[in-house]
Amino acid sequence: MTHPPPVDYQTDPTRYRHWTLAVDGPIATLSAAFDEEAGLRPGYKLKLNSYDLGVDIELHDAINRIRFEHPAVRTVVITSARDRVFCSGANIYMLGVSSHAWKVNFCKFTNETRNGLEDSSRHDGLKFLAAVNGSCAGGGYELALACDRILLVDDRSSAVSLPEVPLLGVLPGTGGLTRVTDKRHVRPDLADVFCTMSEGVRGKKAKDWRLVDDIAKPAQFAAKTAELARELAADSVRPTAAKPVALTPLARSVEPDALRYQAVTVSIDRSARVATFLVQGPSDVQPDDPESILAAGANWYPLTLSRELEDAILWMRTNELDIGVWLLKTQGDPRAVLALDEILLAYRETWPVRETVGYLRRTFSRLDVTSRSLFALIEEGSCFVGSLLELALACDRSFHLALPDDETKTPRIALTEVNFGLYPTVTGQSRLQRRFYDDGAMLQTMRAETGRLFSADEAFMLGLVTSNPDDIDWADETRIAIEERVAMNPDALSGLEANLRFNGKETMMTRIFGRLSTWQNWIFQRPNAVGEKGALKVYGRGARPEFDRERV
Amino acid sequence: MTHPPPVDYQTDPTRYRHWTLAVDGPIATLSAAFDEEAGLRPGYKLKLNSYDLGVDIELHDAINRIRFEHPAVRTVVITSARDRVFCSGANIYMLGVSSHAWKVNFCKFTNETRNGLEDSSRHDGLKFLAAVNGSCAGGGYELALACDRILLVDDRSSAVSLPEVPLLGVLPGTGGLTRVTDKRHVRPDLADVFCTMSEGVRGKKAKDWRLVDDIAKPAQFAAKTAELARELAADSVRPTAAKPVALTPLARSVEPDALRYQAVTVSIDRSARVATFLVQGPSDVQPDDPESILAAGANWYPLTLSRELEDAILWMRTNELDIGVWLLKTQGDPRAVLALDEILLAYRETWPVRETVGYLRRTFSRLDVTSRSLFALIEEGSCFVGSLLELALACDRSFHLALPDDETKTPRIALTEVNFGLYPTVTGQSRLQRRFYDDGAMLQTMRAETGRLFSADEAFMLGLVTSNPDDIDWADETRIAIEERVAMNPDALSGLEANLRFNGKETMMTRIFGRLSTWQNWIFQRPNAVGEKGALKVYGRGARPEFDRERV
Repeated sequence: MTHPPPVDYQTDPTRYRHWTLAVDGPIATLSAAFDEEAGLRPGYKLKLNSYDLGVDIELHDAINRIRFEHPAVRTVVITSARDRVFCSGANIYMLGVSSHAWKVNFCKFTNETRNGLEDSSRHDGLKFLAAVNGSCAGGGYELALACDRILLVDDRSSAVSLPEVPLLGVLPGTGGLTRVTDKRHVRPDLADVFCTMSEGVRGKKAKDWRLVDDIAKPAQFAAKTAELARELAADSVRPTAAKPVALTPLARSVEPDALRYQAVTVSIDRSARVATFLVQGPSDVQPDDPESILAAGANWYPLTLSRELEDAILWMRTNELDIGVWLLKTQGDPRAVLALDEILLAYRETWPVRETVGYLRRTFSRLDVTSRSLFALIEEGSCFVGSLLELALACDRSFHLALPDDETKTPRIALTEVNFGLYPTVTGQSRLQRRFYDDGAMLQTMRAETGRLFSADEAFMLGLVTSNPDDIDWADETRIAIEERVAMNPDALSGLEANLRFNGKETMMTRIFGRLSTWQNWIFQRPNAVGEKGALKVYGRGARPEFDRERV
Repeated sequence: MTHPPPVDYQTDPTRYRHWTLAVDGPIATLSAAFDEEAGLRPGYKLKLNSYDLGVDIELHDAINRIRFEHPAVRTVVITSARDRVFCSGANIYMLGVSSHAWKVNFCKFTNETRNGLEDSSRHDGLKFLAAVNGSCAGGGYELALACDRILLVDDRSSAVSLPEVPLLGVLPGTGGLTRVTDKRHVRPDLADVFCTMSEGVRGKKAKDWRLVDDIAKPAQFAAKTAELARELAADSVRPTAAKPVALTPLARSVEPDALRYQAVTVSIDRSARVATFLVQGPSDVQPDDPESILAAGANWYPLTLSRELEDAILWMRTNELDIGVWLLKTQGDPRAVLALDEILLAYRETWPVRETVGYLRRTFSRLDVTSRSLFALIEEGSCFVGSLLELALACDRSFHLALPDDETKTPRIALTEVNFGLYPTVTGQSRLQRRFYDDGAMLQTMRAETGRLFSADEAFMLGLVTSNPDDIDWADETRIAIEERVAMNPDALSGLEANLRFNGKETMMTRIFGRLSTWQNWIFQRPNAVGEKGALKVYGRGARPEFDRERV
């Protein structure tokens, strides 16, 4: 059996097969005309603007390029270049031939991309308008739902729909159900009707039911699109006359057991089923004002780090399914990170610092929803400080080496002001708030200590690390923890980690991952969907699915 | 193949095999000594105080009897009558031989019972103390977690533990993960350690990690238990010298295609896979003061209704898995319900009205988590008013017959003050708040209209019903809706309904059902847990499980 080639999340507009990006002053337009023949895997055609992972990789790339390479853009219009069809959702034949892990990974990335639109809208003033100029089904409507506004053409035929339940026997798994309720406040019983009808809802009824914000006749559609796009652009915090930052190709080398970038190296130990992510800290000479940051461009350390870490996370999630434990390490000068954090804080509202902080925020958030066990190893020579401490705080556990007899070598961690809100998780909390259940007194104590370098024993006392073994215990304790972890049922670990990482507070985004996606995971396993006579399997074959009627 | 006998949720203390109930003034003690030989199904023994559904049916019955038959009780102590073991959780061999639907149903009922403890503590002043006098594992610890306080014996051996992940390859599925975080605020990384170690945590460490509230040496354990029980009893709103209400046996007749009670009839149409729940409204002569209510006892209409409806829901959920759609109907005089609601509101703080309202609240909440499609049919002669309107508001859809040409026959619904908070769902919202996403203006409009009897067209305009077909369309519209519903993938419907019914606001209880239980559902389907070499299958056979190592 030959393995398919690994999935590569890197692309650029010259290689796009599915999207066209056009920029006109503050408005960018992304037009969908998905190339039927350019599916990421063989076995299906991307008809009727149906998409697969490859389409979404381009979309994600395009949004990132707008964020950095087109600073003047304030509204992104997402529309179709095809006649009468906006987007018909995820390609069903692709789902039918995909493994369970592929489907779940695919849904996770598309969810992250859609959450990313909302993240940019909320934090960074980049707004999104879905200009729905044709039929808009399933994942197509879910993409529209992730936009700030939805305009639907009122042409007596174009409808929005979520036909997954009646047609395919699965759920709209990319946020559809959650956004219909939590974001758009469609009355639950109307949502029930809408989600069980395959034909969808069009025209005035779509607006009355709150499924879209506006409708426009075909003759007025372009003008209305332009008007709404301008409206959305009005209040943006995006810069007015900033220089772009070119997202130059990543310096990446893919080896059989390693991924090497400038600031990130991933080493894979297949027999142990463990990967080590080593993050190199910043050098001690860093640009310290907006102009020199801009001059550094994509080589500015925090931007390099976000891009490389994101790519490594996505690569490892998609291409290395058997690697159950990720060890996170850092290497560098703690003081250089302290200095970097000062700059990030000083210019956080400034181009392109704000946008880079956003990239880091979204990249750290990818760790939160990664179904791998994450352990931070805080060793000699490490620099888990401030922005880089977020990596340890995102982990399920952290081990901090105590070297009480060697003051100079003892690894230290430190909090900086960035840990108190610069990188909120999708709940709106900092990782410290999440860790300490918003305990105000404890957080105040911590905040008074920013900049102090803590030894393992101090960090342990404060509750910042899980364990503080000394050098006699270190090797055994970490080895046993890793060995025990990889021996457990990986499915149970996915469930455990998802529950513990998201404790307490829920938002629309956690509900999409925690409630909706999990139901979809379940349904994606059930014979009624994926069995030989299951709805997803027989779709398009002219046969009717056969269901086990038991309600569970 | 012979079918096993149906599961009956009715029992009484004379028939208990597993629990002993002792009452001493304001303190009741429930002692666990589960009868190994008295499993509900053949094939396993309830060793080491491990439980199955039958054990939990008794527990649920005992709590209800304390609520009504022992009004002076303010604290319930849950402890073990066995030496060195408190409770070792759900019986693993039972799980190993159970169908997926059985496991999910079992978890749902145990979840409802545990949520019921917290419901009584929060709303009705009945407090719970887990006096953990021996080892306390898995579901045993989850039962303790549902109590207000946990006291652990400090005997150098008794530990609390959640060994599901490392031992069984599944999750603690009865609220364990959620309560450890949301309720007890165990730091997530410590929770990760705790949930991946089979031996658990004992003594001072259990208290330091917040896993228990107190510890006591064996010699002091009884005294400490009494002290904590008295403390918990101190602030109760339970009555001081009230007469008990005896929960007399339900008048129930089980027929092949029907369940008949006094106020509830369930008719089952197996070929259509539809059941009709017909609720008979109250008569127009009702006790109208606390004394006559008390004199009516278990025959007081709201108490009869709660008990019968609860029994019908549980019976149908467990014993009629293929019945995918439940139709909810009412029959009676709308004005009699208006009058009843006046009494419920007037005496809501009074014994036994408060306790009865609690029973209704918990019973309505069972509908919210029932994995069946719920349609309300509002027809001629119905009385969907106030308390009974909650039934329609709990439904996925409601159909209200319009008879515009016949003013006298036209079915009407009405809001009463009870719809604005007497029966909160587990999110703390009323069903109206949930329906209208807490839209204050809309709720104010509604509140101004309490007591008014709305026709179908009026109810439709207000958004209180989904559809208002006239008598020409009624039969076709409802028939098609039902036929379409039963034709869809029942798994997808379970996921859809769970997502739409719980929109927006989440609490610990919704997280237990929506996040934790759904992960467990998924894991309960996966070969790593339930396959021939899965962890749950090989447990106790001396073999090691074999896992597919893919992380999903």
